[in-house]
Amino acid sequence: MSKSSTVSERQTPAGDVSISSGGLVIHSQNISLQTTERVELVDLTERIMGVVHTSRVREGLVSLASLHTTCAVFINENQSALHADIKEFLEATVARAGKWRHNDPEHSDCDRNNADAHLRAMLLGHNMTLQVTGGELVLGQWQRVLAAELDGPRIRLVRVQVQGIA
Amino acid sequence: MSKSSTVSERQTPAGDVSISSGGLVIHSQNISLQTTERVELVDLTERIMGVVHTSRVREGLVSLASLHTTCAVFINENQSALHADIKEFLEATVARAGKWRHNDPEHSDCDRNNADAHLRAMLLGHNMTLQVTGGELVLGQWQRVLAAELDGPRIRLVRVQVQGIA
Amino acid sequence: MSKSSTVSERQTPAGDVSISSGGLVIHSQNISLQTTERVELVDLTERIMGVVHTSRVREGLVSLASLHTTCAVFINENQSALHADIKEFLEATVARAGKWRHNDPEHSDCDRNNADAHLRAMLLGHNMTLQVTGGELVLGQWQRVLAAELDGPRIRLVRVQVQGIA
Repeated sequence: MSKSSTVSERQTPAGDVSISSGGLVIHSQNISLQTTERVELVDLTERIMGVVHTSRVREGLVSLASLHTTCAVFINENQSALHADIKEFLEATVARAGKWRHNDPEHSDCDRNNADAHLRAMLLGHNMTLQVTGGELVLGQWQRVLAAELDGPRIRLVRVQVQGIA
Repeated sequence: MSKSSTVSERQTPAGDVSISSGGLVIHSQNISLQTTERVELVDLTERIMGVVHTSRVREGLVSLASLHTTCAVFINENQSALHADIKEFLEATVARAGKWRHNDPEHSDCDRNNADAHLRAMLLGHNMTLQVTGGELVLGQWQRVLAAELDGPRIRLVRVQVQGIA
Repeated sequence: MSKSSTVSERQTPAGDVSISSGGLVIHSQNISLQTTERVELVDLTERIMGVVHTSRVREGLVSLASLHTTCAVFINENQSALHADIKEFLEATVARAGKWRHNDPEHSDCDRNNADAHLRAMLLGHNMTLQVTGGELVLGQWQRVLAAELDGPRIRLVRVQVQGIA
């Protein structure tokens, strides 16, 4: 069995794009974040709201895509105490020091020792689609859009696509 | 560190909206449910199918958004025995009585004692996008759209947006 | 309590459809896969890229929907070592031999003994929405679209809907 991973290659990078056709507007841009810890939660809500405003879409959808296997996007409350609980839960559920094959040079050519980060991201998810109405993101009062850095510190990209009727 | 959580505020509530432009129709409305237990699974499938029919969209997408941090939406089978298993799994994986910081007044100003509900919802997810074809929701034979109440009993809102070609 | 599950019935099967209206194109088709093990991960990325190309959509969204309760779709790296870790994690987190009610004839009319598969699919998710830009799927370098067979071997269907501006 190969120790390597399949690479997804694009002809051109996924950059910022704004187009419209008929009644449909599609506006996409990348959000970049510099994380500072191995495991860290970052509140992206204000930045995503900014992209929605820039798009001028009033009714539609916002797709969020982390462009990394070990960085997730999900919804939860933005509170220090809860974030500590989330990190503790992730460590209890997927032990960093588990005997993972992905961390074993005999089976894997990855030298980041980050199997835990892959499994934790799998639980939280890499993609999320939210709604826009009245030109604003649809979120409950305590809901925030969080990015989970699971193998930092690193620079991470989240691609945001807003589409709908302006 | 603050004990508080960030609040997401909208200028106007996310209400029912129906618009179209070019070939695109977007129809959104809120589904409300009154739960009766702390942890409870509710089958929303028929109500979502009703919103799809109301929208008159024949080909497109349906976005579902729980507007609460401790209420999730997900796909699974609607069977009493399996629902008992799901509840048991959630309790085994995220103990209600765990030593969570979110439940500790020294670290948190939340008095609902509901850290478990936040973590369980994180695993199930708050948002889901399904397909519509031929004017009907796309679901496998045993698939049902379930809402998971994780900190009830309460009144919960799920916002449904149908978009596509009528 | 009933031992049975609710059935989702469609008037017509969800087949291949291609339509457009105004500036919006919607192209949907089913991908079929034959799995060979009870638990197996299958890389669907190339096939989904093929559907995107067929649709001629340049900017838009791709919705993926597993049409089965015990088959999931998710993002992760495609590497044998990591896939072994994912399977081990699923077995450690949701024991196949757990005392599940769904497997007990006293409570359930399902004879597949597959409660574990339902719970595992719930963690990974059945639906995912990705972005398209420049006519190509938006994925990070190491991201691949994986289907998780959790109660095989079986023939599985994943419905792919591409929508946006051509």
